[in-house]
Amino acid sequence: MGEVKVLGMWASPFSLRVEWALKLKGVEYEFANEDLLNNNKSAELLRYNPVYKKVPVLVHGGHPVAESLVIIEYIDEVWKDGPAFLPTDPYERAQARFWARFTEDKILPGIFGVYSRAGEEQKKAAEELKENLKTFGGALKGKKLFGGETIGYVDIVAGWLAYWIPMIEEIAGVRIVEELPEIRAWFDKFLVVEAVKQCLPPREKLYDLNRKRRENLLATQGGHP
Amino acid sequence: MGEVKVLGMWASPFSLRVEWALKLKGVEYEFANEDLLNNNKSAELLRYNPVYKKVPVLVHGGHPVAESLVIIEYIDEVWKDGPAFLPTDPYERAQARFWARFTEDKILPGIFGVYSRAGEEQKKAAEELKENLKTFGGALKGKKLFGGETIGYVDIVAGWLAYWIPMIEEIAGVRIVEELPEIRAWFDKFLVVEAVKQCLPPREKLYDLNRKRRENLLATQGGHP
Repeated sequence: MGEVKVLGMWASPFSLRVEWALKLKGVEYEFANEDLLNNNKSAELLRYNPVYKKVPVLVHGGHPVAESLVIIEYIDEVWKDGPAFLPTDPYERAQARFWARFTEDKILPGIFGVYSRAGEEQKKAAEELKENLKTFGGALKGKKLFGGETIGYVDIVAGWLAYWIPMIEEIAGVRIVEELPEIRAWFDKFLVVEAVKQCLPPREKLYDLNRKRRENLLATQGGHP
Repeated sequence: MGEVKVLGMWASPFSLRVEWALKLKGVEYEFANEDLLNNNKSAELLRYNPVYKKVPVLVHGGHPVAESLVIIEYIDEVWKDGPAFLPTDPYERAQARFWARFTEDKILPGIFGVYSRAGEEQKKAAEELKENLKTFGGALKGKKLFGGETIGYVDIVAGWLAYWIPMIEEIAGVRIVEELPEIRAWFDKFLVVEAVKQCLPPREKLYDLNRKRRENLLATQGGHP
């Protein structure tokens, strides 16, 4: 099948998705950390993802795949022996793809809004984010995880929220999931999975990075409350 | 399999994608045009797509699927007897998904930029759009269509460009594809396909609508040159 390498970045949720997918499938891989903090991208990254020049890139037997959602489906289709991420029923597959996109299109920008702003703007972003998380939580429909009893496509795509949201609540001084018991329960169930835990970046290091980034963002925008 | 209905809008490229996919598969469907121009959404649309309240929605045997890219994959997976939109090889599937997203994330906003702006801002948007279209054209790699000899997933997702871009060039007074022979050749090859032609909205009616919309957008932004 060829060797597997991930061009990633330790603090990137998108890169983390790919590591989770590989770990869950039991695939051995090499992780190459891109020095994005110093804007020092490797020649390999530029060659393998000339369109976006972004992490993550999965290099499989010398062939690159970019874009985390695309990579996860690729991993699911290539390593069929491991647990399936997408269900087999076309309707359920469509629902999973719909909710994965929802987190990309609605929840991700919402989190950035809360994280990068202060005062009234932040409050507004937080309200909208809560609404979207509530909608997202509704898609669980009483299941343990979005994939059911085991981690599925939506869990892999959205799982970073479980680690990032509580951290951002602390850094940005907002309450997001307090009144969202479904989401909090999902966070807990997701974070105890062994493959998930194995790949999580060190909390303190990630916290420091995200705290500094927020300070820089607020300083640039003049967005202090 | 159940009845098939499309909640769409005659001037929406996203809605058109779904019609193309169904026509190519030879699936009979009912088309319900949503009165979006008067912001008069049907109860059916609100019920079947409560999250986005947007077209297109595919209703199959009473079950809704929303988001055009998700719908196209659903159609491909359900009606396997018709021509396959995605290749079978996982790597080629990943490439198709990558390029489909590229048109959504880069080319679509670029077109809106050219369409909704004037003067220097429009010029800048046009240059960026040309670059991205050139990159996209490179993905053809000498093939007739993105799907090879027949229409594939990327063609269905991006095919609206073949009809919309020349129209927007005229309405917005810009040249976009003049120096992009691969893209122009693909436009021509795509637009002669019978299933494609059958669903195209009347050119004059679409032209008028888009011309008026541009005028409104420019007036609102004060964006006249």
